[in-house]
Amino acid sequence: MDEVLADPIKKFIHLYNRDYDVPLDLQIEPGNEIYQHIPEHINNKWFDYINEKGFFRDLELIEGSVEAVKKLQEKYEVYIVSAAMEFPNSLEDKYHWLAEHFPFISWKNIMFCGEKIVNTDIMIDDRAKNFIDFKGRTLLFTSPHNLLLTDYERVNNWQEVLDKLM
Amino acid sequence: MDEVLADPIKKFIHLYNRDYDVPLDLQIEPGNEIYQHIPEHINNKWFDYINEKGFFRDLELIEGSVEAVKKLQEKYEVYIVSAAMEFPNSLEDKYHWLAEHFPFISWKNIMFCGEKIVNTDIMIDDRAKNFIDFKGRTLLFTSPHNLLLTDYERVNNWQEVLDKLM
Repeated sequence: MDEVLADPIKKFIHLYNRDYDVPLDLQIEPGNEIYQHIPEHINNKWFDYINEKGFFRDLELIEGSVEAVKKLQEKYEVYIVSAAMEFPNSLEDKYHWLAEHFPFISWKNIMFCGEKIVNTDIMIDDRAKNFIDFKGRTLLFTSPHNLLLTDYERVNNWQEVLDKLM
Repeated sequence: MDEVLADPIKKFIHLYNRDYDVPLDLQIEPGNEIYQHIPEHINNKWFDYINEKGFFRDLELIEGSVEAVKKLQEKYEVYIVSAAMEFPNSLEDKYHWLAEHFPFISWKNIMFCGEKIVNTDIMIDDRAKNFIDFKGRTLLFTSPHNLLLTDYERVNNWQEVLDKLM
């Protein structure tokens, strides 16, 4: 979900700007996580934000995600698999966010987990660690933190996903 | 989780008894679900109960489950995979219930889903429908509703799980 369907980075930037006057146009350097760009004395606040109820409820969509997932459903059984379990306060928010933006995805096809031990043919993910032990085809969805990785088939946006899979 | 680690049936019986004076020693006939034993005018109330916040928070343990899972961890990577997504109000309750009773299970090894599309070697489950498309070894954990099924390797309790797997 995060950085593939939903945009937590934009929300972080908004909250840092609101609370600490960190500039809204923060650019994340290739290979870096957002917290590496925040002044040291507040760079662990992202963890507080992410644990707050409501953080995941109103995230903006990643461009084209709704239309692309709908399109993929014409040819594939699509599952949403989110590593949500580390942040238990996110569980309900993520469920309701999906119900709002992806109402065409059944609860049967939603999974909140820790490790993504799923048995599917294809996985689209921004975190290469989720590809370990996965047997199918992997598509690395571009996000600043993974820009330096070169060992994976990469998709830069949802149009490229559709170009490859449809 | 349900009917394997946790006991929702006992809770149903308690609630029906409290609210409608349905006797506490309700016996479920082999092959039946609990709602088939409730007077017709209230036999859809179990759905209301299950959707209430808190229902899953204080379920009793299935006998021997904590000790058995702890023992299994000596030899296996154990994941808890629960079809919780149909009841979104259960998500947080289930998380906190697991944290209370199974604190030795990491969040990385917990999965709340609809369909159980997991890639593991063994699945222990009371619902045979979860074995469809599963490639590994299946152990059907005995519950009243599955007592008539004969096509599966069956375990009647956690001691039998340990006898087979340890």
